[in-house]
Amino acid sequence: MYAFSNAVNSMHSEDIKLLMKQSSGKSMISFAGGMPNNDLFPVVEIDEIYNALPNDLKKLCFQYGPTSGFPPLVKSLEKILLKKGLPVDKNKILITTGSLQAISIITQEFVNQGDIILTENPSFVGALSVFETYQAEIHGIPIDKDGIDIDALKQKIASLDKKPKLLYVTPNYHNPAGIIYSPKRKIELLEVLSGTGIILIEDDAYSDLYFKEEEKYLTKSMKCCNDFDVEIIYTGSFSKILGPGFRLGYMLASPEIFEKAETIKQALDACTSNFMQILANEFINKNKLQPYLEFLRKEYAERKDLLQKSLEKYMPKEVTWNEPKGGFYIWLKLPNHIKSTDIFKESVKNGVVFVTGRTFDPVSKKDDRLRLSFANVPLEDMDKGVKILAEVMKEVFENRSKLKL
Amino acid sequence: MYAFSNAVNSMHSEDIKLLMKQSSGKSMISFAGGMPNNDLFPVVEIDEIYNALPNDLKKLCFQYGPTSGFPPLVKSLEKILLKKGLPVDKNKILITTGSLQAISIITQEFVNQGDIILTENPSFVGALSVFETYQAEIHGIPIDKDGIDIDALKQKIASLDKKPKLLYVTPNYHNPAGIIYSPKRKIELLEVLSGTGIILIEDDAYSDLYFKEEEKYLTKSMKCCNDFDVEIIYTGSFSKILGPGFRLGYMLASPEIFEKAETIKQALDACTSNFMQILANEFINKNKLQPYLEFLRKEYAERKDLLQKSLEKYMPKEVTWNEPKGGFYIWLKLPNHIKSTDIFKESVKNGVVFVTGRTFDPVSKKDDRLRLSFANVPLEDMDKGVKILAEVMKEVFENRSKLKL
Repeated sequence: MYAFSNAVNSMHSEDIKLLMKQSSGKSMISFAGGMPNNDLFPVVEIDEIYNALPNDLKKLCFQYGPTSGFPPLVKSLEKILLKKGLPVDKNKILITTGSLQAISIITQEFVNQGDIILTENPSFVGALSVFETYQAEIHGIPIDKDGIDIDALKQKIASLDKKPKLLYVTPNYHNPAGIIYSPKRKIELLEVLSGTGIILIEDDAYSDLYFKEEEKYLTKSMKCCNDFDVEIIYTGSFSKILGPGFRLGYMLASPEIFEKAETIKQALDACTSNFMQILANEFINKNKLQPYLEFLRKEYAERKDLLQKSLEKYMPKEVTWNEPKGGFYIWLKLPNHIKSTDIFKESVKNGVVFVTGRTFDPVSKKDDRLRLSFANVPLEDMDKGVKILAEVMKEVFENRSKLKL
Repeated sequence: MYAFSNAVNSMHSEDIKLLMKQSSGKSMISFAGGMPNNDLFPVVEIDEIYNALPNDLKKLCFQYGPTSGFPPLVKSLEKILLKKGLPVDKNKILITTGSLQAISIITQEFVNQGDIILTENPSFVGALSVFETYQAEIHGIPIDKDGIDIDALKQKIASLDKKPKLLYVTPNYHNPAGIIYSPKRKIELLEVLSGTGIILIEDDAYSDLYFKEEEKYLTKSMKCCNDFDVEIIYTGSFSKILGPGFRLGYMLASPEIFEKAETIKQALDACTSNFMQILANEFINKNKLQPYLEFLRKEYAERKDLLQKSLEKYMPKEVTWNEPKGGFYIWLKLPNHIKSTDIFKESVKNGVVFVTGRTFDPVSKKDDRLRLSFANVPLEDMDKGVKILAEVMKEVFENRSKLKL
C-alpha cells in the first residue's frame, strides 16, 4: 500500500487515474519509482548508530535545534563539500527538510507571482511543482546528451521581455533524462549566464551515485569552478545516500542569500528534525557513509546493467536511449508520432508501469519519451517487465503504421 | 551550546544581543526556554519501540511517504481526536513537519501580502514570525484571564476597511500568557466570528498538559462544538508530548481546505519524515502515550508549584500573575511604567534570563509583562533564580521611584 503511494508520487495525475482503474487487484511491475530500493537502506548501520548514541546526544534528538541546522552536521557537511571542491569558506550551509525544501525556500526568496523561472525540459517534477505552486511562469529549455541546449537557452533569454529570476538545473544523472553534463557544457552555461543576474540553482541529488570511479570527475559542481559573474545556489540531499524518510537536504549559498533563507526556513518549520540530523551526522562521523556509497554504486550499476541488457535484448530498434553513467534512470526516446501516454495506456493493462514523458515537461506536453527507473524494480521482474513493455510498444507502433496506411 | 541556541530561539533579537554580550563565560539560570525538559523525554520508550520495529516497517522508515501523512499515523490520530470530541468524520487530517508548518501552510493558502491577520496580543512568537514572513498586516487583540477580549475584537473588526483573513488563537495554556479560555469565552468568540468569513485557527499544542483531571474539560476544542457559521482549522503538535525534535504536527480541516493544503505541503517538503511518523505511531499504538502524558502532567504540575511558591515567597507585591492550570508558562505583570526590557537588562547581568513581554507583541511594543517558563529550568535553580529576579525587580522599581521624586 505505501510502496504504491510512494511509487505514484512523481506520476502525472492523469496517469495515476488510469493506473488506479487498471491495476485494481493486479500485481504490477513498476519502473516508476524514483526512490531508492527499500532493501538497500543502511538499516543495520543506523541500528548500530542509534543504539550507540550517548545518552545526552539521544536526549538532544528529541529537542529543538537551531534553524540553520545541527551544528556538528553542518561541520561534517562542510568537510564533505570541501573535499568535492565546493567553496564552503565563502558560502554558508543551511540544513533543510529534504532538498525540495531548499528549492521551496529559494523560490520564496526570489520569485513573486508571474516571475519567470527557466528549467530544463524535461525537469525534476518535484521542482516544477514547487515553481507552479508559487505561480511562477516556467519556461523549459531542451537538453541533449551533454546538458542544456546552449543556443536554445540564449534564444530564450533574448526573447523574454523580463529577466528570468532563476535557472534550475540538475547536471548530474538528470532526473528523468539520466544524462550528465559534459565539462564543456557547464562552462558554456556559466558563460551564458555570466552578468545576466539570473541565479543558477544547481541541484545535485545524485552525484555520489556514479558507476565508474574514472568518471567521477564528471560530477564536479559548477559552483566549484565559478570564475564567472554567476550567483550559484548549490543544493544537495541525503535522500539518495541515506534515505528519503530522513527528509534531510541542504543548500550552499552566499551569506546574503543564506541569511534570508534562514528566516524563511524559520517560518516554514522552525528547524529540521534533530533526531534525523544526529543520526545522519553519526553515520558520517562513524565512517559509515563512504562504504555505504561504495555498496550503493555497485548495486545501482548492476541494476543499470541488467536494465540496459534487457533493453538491448527486447526493445524495437526505433526506440533509442543513452546508457547512463550514474543515478537511477534510463530515458527512452520513442519514434516520431508515438506518445509515451499511448504506450502507458497499453502497458498498464499488461501490468507494467513507468512515468510518461509529459510528466517532466513544464507544460505537460512533450511526450516522446518515457522514464524507466532501475532503482526500485525487483531484480527478478526487470527482464520480464522490459519484455512486456517492448511487446506493447511493437503493438502500438504496428497499429499506428496500419492507421497510416 | 545547543541548549543555548535552543533557549534563545523564541527571544527578541535585541534581547539576544544583550544576552550574548552579558553572558559570555557566565552560567545563567534560564526561564526562557519554551521547550520540554531534556530529562523528561521518553528516551527509554522510544528505544524499546525502535528496537522492536519489524524489519519491513524499519525499512519503510527510510522511504518517502504520502504527502498527507503515514496512513497508520493518520488513523491513530483520528482515534485520539475523536476521543477529544473533534469532528474527524467531516474533516481531514494533514500531517505536518511540526505544527508551525501547519500555520505556514494555512497562511500560504489564505493570505496574500498586505492581508490582515488577527492575533491575540500577546501571541505565540513562532506564528507571528510566520505571518510577518508572508507580509501580512497583523493586528493584535488584548486578552484577559478568560481569553481574547471580545469587545476589543468586535471593535477591531468593525474598524477595519477590509475583512481579516484569519484569527489565530491558542486557547489552551496560552504561550506566553499561561491562561486557558473559559467555556463562555469560547462561545462568545464563535458568536462574534459567525458569518464574518474570518477563518479561525485554533492552535492547540498544550491541551494534554493540564494539571488537574477535574479541569481537563476546560481544554475542549472550539471545533468540537461549532454550531456557528465559522470555519475552524484545528492544529496540534507532538512537540510537547513526545519531543520537538520529531518535527511532527498536524492540522484538522474541511476537505476543501485540506486539499489545497496538501498541494502546498507537497511543494514545501514533499512529505513529513516517515521515520519520525512511524516511531510516533508505534508510541501511540504500543500504549505508551497515555502513561507518558500522565507522567508529564505530574512533572510539570510539580514544576509549576515550585515556581508558584518561589514567586509568592520573593516577588514584590506590585508584581501580579495568574496561576496556570496547565502548560509551561507563568506570565508576570509589572507595575505601571516598568518595562520588562528594563528588568531584563539588569537580570541578565545577575545571571537570570527570561523572555520579555514585547517579544510576543505583534508590533514589539507592549512590554509590561515577562514570561517565565517552568518547563526547562533545572529544579535546583528555580528558587535561586526567582530570588535573584525579585531582587533585580525591587532595585529597578526603587530606582524608578527615585527618578520620579
